[in-house]
Amino acid sequence: MTTMPLDVVGIGNAIVDILSHADDAFLAAHGLAKGAMTLIDAERAGALYRAMGPAVESSGGSAANTIAGIASLGGRAGYIGKVANDQFGGVFRHDIRAAGVRFETAAAQGGPPTARCLIFVTADAQRTMQTYLGACLELGLEDIDPEVIGHAKVTYLEGYLWDPPRAKEAFRKAAAIARQAGHKVALSLSDSFCVDRHRDEFRQLVDEHVDILFANEQEICSLWQVGRFDEALQATRGRCEVTVLTRSAKGSVIVAGDEVHVIDASPAGQVVDTTGAGDLYAAGFLFGYTSGKNLYDCGRIGALAAAEIIGHFGARPQTPLTELLLAQLR
Amino acid sequence: MTTMPLDVVGIGNAIVDILSHADDAFLAAHGLAKGAMTLIDAERAGALYRAMGPAVESSGGSAANTIAGIASLGGRAGYIGKVANDQFGGVFRHDIRAAGVRFETAAAQGGPPTARCLIFVTADAQRTMQTYLGACLELGLEDIDPEVIGHAKVTYLEGYLWDPPRAKEAFRKAAAIARQAGHKVALSLSDSFCVDRHRDEFRQLVDEHVDILFANEQEICSLWQVGRFDEALQATRGRCEVTVLTRSAKGSVIVAGDEVHVIDASPAGQVVDTTGAGDLYAAGFLFGYTSGKNLYDCGRIGALAAAEIIGHFGARPQTPLTELLLAQLR
Repeated sequence: MTTMPLDVVGIGNAIVDILSHADDAFLAAHGLAKGAMTLIDAERAGALYRAMGPAVESSGGSAANTIAGIASLGGRAGYIGKVANDQFGGVFRHDIRAAGVRFETAAAQGGPPTARCLIFVTADAQRTMQTYLGACLELGLEDIDPEVIGHAKVTYLEGYLWDPPRAKEAFRKAAAIARQAGHKVALSLSDSFCVDRHRDEFRQLVDEHVDILFANEQEICSLWQVGRFDEALQATRGRCEVTVLTRSAKGSVIVAGDEVHVIDASPAGQVVDTTGAGDLYAAGFLFGYTSGKNLYDCGRIGALAAAEIIGHFGARPQTPLTELLLAQLR
Repeated sequence: MTTMPLDVVGIGNAIVDILSHADDAFLAAHGLAKGAMTLIDAERAGALYRAMGPAVESSGGSAANTIAGIASLGGRAGYIGKVANDQFGGVFRHDIRAAGVRFETAAAQGGPPTARCLIFVTADAQRTMQTYLGACLELGLEDIDPEVIGHAKVTYLEGYLWDPPRAKEAFRKAAAIARQAGHKVALSLSDSFCVDRHRDEFRQLVDEHVDILFANEQEICSLWQVGRFDEALQATRGRCEVTVLTRSAKGSVIVAGDEVHVIDASPAGQVVDTTGAGDLYAAGFLFGYTSGKNLYDCGRIGALAAAEIIGHFGARPQTPLTELLLAQLR
């Protein structure tokens, strides 16, 4: 059997997002760290859901959002992640396949339910995320298909994968296969608190396994334990082939050896919900990268995809990104 | 035990909406009647879902949307409808309770899953709905709590309830209890195809049981089998205490005995998705009505609530409607 070559395969926590509006008083009353992703257990997830306002469900997961974005841009994309055999698992599987993504990971049977992330969106468009990992804890070595990884130009890993204990073995196996096939390994640092939890391992990964590193300002400062963006920029030079640093409205900076590119954010209309902004920037960058674009253009496509996602509720594109890309080129 | 008095209790099909964008070619390829609600079986629902693009899940159901809207306006509202004991049932229950609605109907055990409505939104903001009724078929007489109905100023029924065979008994029982308690019965005709399916029964209902009738232009023309709006207007005068006719961008007309009010639509920004426009108009009207407003003001609140809902994807308010109402009054 031959395997279709892919531009990017992503590995991540397969999560259904449950999004609702909330105000700062709600965050304070429930002790939620604004803007961060916090891991919670089933009991806490139940209690928070009961307290949450009316919500909307949408497939999520950081790497899954990126992969869905790459497919929406016209890239050939695959995904590896663990859902349970339940309704939310069905929703996740449907949405990622309907986006045109190859997704074959077997559902977990009889264990915890599909992961969910309770997302509280405040009026300032910030999102505060509370994640119950559920079935994601079951992702393991057996889920890494060497055929798929070996045929993808880039294997993309989310830092959040460092949280479920078995997933990091899967992560290392995938990275090794990709490297052996002469392909690239990309890592997103995911969240500054996630970096705090796994700093030493992330530094080692960056030095030994990662070709393309994605981080926002807080994450890169946390990784190198520095206080200012410019310090982080200097610290990260030369650590891996390409480092892509995103700074919200301040745009992005791409570092590759001696090359440094500074790219403006794309003009956005009303900013409704920043959930998925980093994920979609990575989608645009990787689509450009695997299409052979120069680093500046990769960053511009990333900015364009991020601008789409912050204009509406949720972290999956509502407008086919190919259309936006074509409109931009006209 | 004393029962809290309610402004409105709604009875309807408890449904989770699965919303996705689609184009006219998709509707044609799958033989979908644009703008209508079509009932489908489990097999067809599965096949259409597999063909559907990436989607978003949101609690729906026509009367449930209305009731959630009344709660969002600050009214005291209750709901009766049947979900299954599954994840979508949990989502429905959470969302309506989180909106502040009293909802005590027991979940169906072991039968078909919670109902879902596949909604295809086209670029012209029209919605085409395909409904699998699932657990809604289990709603029956035993679910009608006379205490709740007897303490509600208005009992609101959706015409769609005429589709599941056992629900109409529940509907008649509820109407009888409400009438006996000296309260009002309201009916929404739901959909012109629904009127086609049940025309004779709806005419009898309107003449014998309904105090307040909601219909859009197509529905009222179908009910009286006339071709023009003005004919329908003349045909409906004197049939029930109040008839509320909605006409999308052309506004609404309210008829009550010799009174006739013509009300403009509220200015809307970009029209994204018309799902729920009629449901939310009814919410605004009934909130005004049970607050003792005159019919013109009831219609204006209806128009305001409808304008909110068409500005975004989905049929439940994203902005608390009390805020919009207060902004309007300033």
